[in-house]
Amino acid sequence: MTNSRVFLVGAGPGDPELLTLKAKRVLESADIVLYDYLVHPNCLLFCNDSAECICVGKAKGKHSQTQDEIHSIIETHAARGKKIVRLKGGDPLIFGRGGEEMAFLKSKGIDYEVIPGISAGCAVPAYAGIPLTHRTLSRSVAFVTATTLNGTSIDKLELPEADTLVFFMAVSALKEITTLLKKTSRFNQETPAALIHRGTSSKQKVVC
Amino acid sequence: MTNSRVFLVGAGPGDPELLTLKAKRVLESADIVLYDYLVHPNCLLFCNDSAECICVGKAKGKHSQTQDEIHSIIETHAARGKKIVRLKGGDPLIFGRGGEEMAFLKSKGIDYEVIPGISAGCAVPAYAGIPLTHRTLSRSVAFVTATTLNGTSIDKLELPEADTLVFFMAVSALKEITTLLKKTSRFNQETPAALIHRGTSSKQKVVC
Repeated sequence: MTNSRVFLVGAGPGDPELLTLKAKRVLESADIVLYDYLVHPNCLLFCNDSAECICVGKAKGKHSQTQDEIHSIIETHAARGKKIVRLKGGDPLIFGRGGEEMAFLKSKGIDYEVIPGISAGCAVPAYAGIPLTHRTLSRSVAFVTATTLNGTSIDKLELPEADTLVFFMAVSALKEITTLLKKTSRFNQETPAALIHRGTSSKQKVVC
Repeated sequence: MTNSRVFLVGAGPGDPELLTLKAKRVLESADIVLYDYLVHPNCLLFCNDSAECICVGKAKGKHSQTQDEIHSIIETHAARGKKIVRLKGGDPLIFGRGGEEMAFLKSKGIDYEVIPGISAGCAVPAYAGIPLTHRTLSRSVAFVTATTLNGTSIDKLELPEADTLVFFMAVSALKEITTLLKKTSRFNQETPAALIHRGTSSKQKVVC
């Protein structure tokens, strides 16, 4: 029994000030921080000088650790009694593979805690001035990923019939998504839509 | 032209440590804070001593300001050049009526900014150990409100056909929601479900 503990932490969608107080607190005392490429580098400024920060990738076209490699790094450091922060963009349990890491930690009997982060699905529209729900207009919102584990084509996707839809990682499948949306009775040419690039960052671009 | 500015801020779902760094920063320098009953009182500890904190209600069975009264308070203080924080539980733009407040501020030419908060829809399942999406199992999640502006019966609700569904404010409509879910081909008696009360707080209760 070690006193190690793994924290699966959401860093929020881009703006480093959207980090939570709790995430800041665990970063300050972490021994090891495994972070994704999408995490804003300023989030790492909260780590103490002796912390080891390891980028585990997840950027298109750049070398990334596989999920198994990430598990293996966590397991090794946990066995040494280290306090480990697994820092992910957005929220760790929305399209963040946090569920897989939870399942791994559980299977190894490693103590862990999840610290939610602000999902891009909420914050990116907010920074673009778009409410996701609105009385009289929308009483449901769905987050959908346009990419899949095994590369299944997007046109096989069943669209959730929610009043508002937010697509993650959608740029490369824009044409297919538009075709899909036009097929449903709920959306048409008049339905307001926005495309947001690098949301909440200084490079944010919005096309409505 | 005054230098007033209104911040529509999400306080997160309960645990006051889920406040963002940005929310803390604007609270520290606010002149007026209008907060909902659901906001954890510790969030107000960040306000400076001279700030005026006003509870605008939104608790069942207690007196609440109407939406028009809230708008009117904001307008009055904005005209005096005050820095106003409108602090809401969860995220201001997910079932938080933030869209209505944005529309009001826009119509009055009052400068405002939205600071997203962690939605209960994300954090409450996380604290209960439930990932909302999972590769191979769920590639979409929908947030749905079980209450409506005009009291429309829940059984008139069209359920979003998402892989994971999260109902907000659902306790009083549990029976109707269960009946609705059973009618869809996507869910059956074997579908995992959880009921979470006071999520992320010290009084959290989970029934799976």
